[in-house]
Amino acid sequence: MRRKEFKADEQECIDFLMEKHDGVLTFVGADGWPKAVPLNYAWQDGAVYFHGSKHGEKMAGLASDPRAEFVVYEAHAFIPSHFTDPYLACPATVFFRSARIRGTIVQVEEAEEKAAALGALLRGMQPEGGHAPIDASDPRYASSLRGVAVMRLDPDSLTGKFKFGQNVPEAKREKIVEGLLERGLPGDADTVARIRDAAPKKRRLPSTPEQDSGL
Amino acid sequence: MRRKEFKADEQECIDFLMEKHDGVLTFVGADGWPKAVPLNYAWQDGAVYFHGSKHGEKMAGLASDPRAEFVVYEAHAFIPSHFTDPYLACPATVFFRSARIRGTIVQVEEAEEKAAALGALLRGMQPEGGHAPIDASDPRYASSLRGVAVMRLDPDSLTGKFKFGQNVPEAKREKIVEGLLERGLPGDADTVARIRDAAPKKRRLPSTPEQDSGL
Repeated sequence: MRRKEFKADEQECIDFLMEKHDGVLTFVGADGWPKAVPLNYAWQDGAVYFHGSKHGEKMAGLASDPRAEFVVYEAHAFIPSHFTDPYLACPATVFFRSARIRGTIVQVEEAEEKAAALGALLRGMQPEGGHAPIDASDPRYASSLRGVAVMRLDPDSLTGKFKFGQNVPEAKREKIVEGLLERGLPGDADTVARIRDAAPKKRRLPSTPEQDSGL
Repeated sequence: MRRKEFKADEQECIDFLMEKHDGVLTFVGADGWPKAVPLNYAWQDGAVYFHGSKHGEKMAGLASDPRAEFVVYEAHAFIPSHFTDPYLACPATVFFRSARIRGTIVQVEEAEEKAAALGALLRGMQPEGGHAPIDASDPRYASSLRGVAVMRLDPDSLTGKFKFGQNVPEAKREKIVEGLLERGLPGDADTVARIRDAAPKKRRLPSTPEQDSGL
């Protein structure tokens, strides 16, 4: 069941997609079974680009049915039940962000679009550069560009779920914040900031000097 | 195209599944489209257990077609192209582990199996305990157990791909190791250990004191 309070807006989803570099591409295989393939990607010009081999299950499955869904996920913090309940295990949960893109896969054949997609992929992961620009007119890239498959997922829909305790009553949310600040794992202070941002406006948590120092 | 040199054996896949806590469940939705849903899971008694709402797209899709694939993925290290090539971007890659489980989803109805699955999920993520055991005979858990959906993925096949430079000639692999040790990001020393473990036996890299000190 999708809960409305976790719904991210389109710009939040796009920012998340720009920030991350891998996700899972899902399609129906040539054998009729659902397939889940982890892939690196680039979000570029309103579409998701992937690259891979010209042969194999992805190409076979997507040739027979180009419908696909791609999901990007980040687990930010595990929230143990004992942060809010001394007895029951039920409140244990994970705070996370996810974005799902549903659409149709197109095989990119044109060398310039392939080069631009691979350039975007690499800019995301290797921002320091250290390579010649991927240019379709550079003969040193020509055969690699011909040999690689580049796919574009044209989105029909983009939905995001960012779960940071929006459904939790204020008093419990405060206990979660206290638990995270005390635990202090990498990412916990960032999660506290996200909890505060996501909290329903009228119930925004009061800031205290100790809590602010943790951010 | 799946390359043989990256194939992990069954025990390596199971160890990986025991170590991780989330992945993406893929199935064909009631509307015929492929669906990708990130979920926490527990590997228990040779099956994958999930929990969730009794209503919504997962339940609707899996009721009409229980075939599913579940994938767990971890990106260990981005390997920039300039570790091995001063010019071309092509060698840029990611070293990773992934495991894919294909099988059929069964809805778990029996309270004891539900409790055992939820207990396994929580043991993985909250090993410190701090809650009453999830026990079907504990009246404080009874209504939660009735209200939650628990699904079991019975595997037909389990395949793993662990990519740590097995396909790279020894001289280039040595450059990657040097690059990782010099970069020293969290996880890089662990990736170096995995590269050494995965290297084809006859080409195993010689250990040097400086490299060993990085592990």
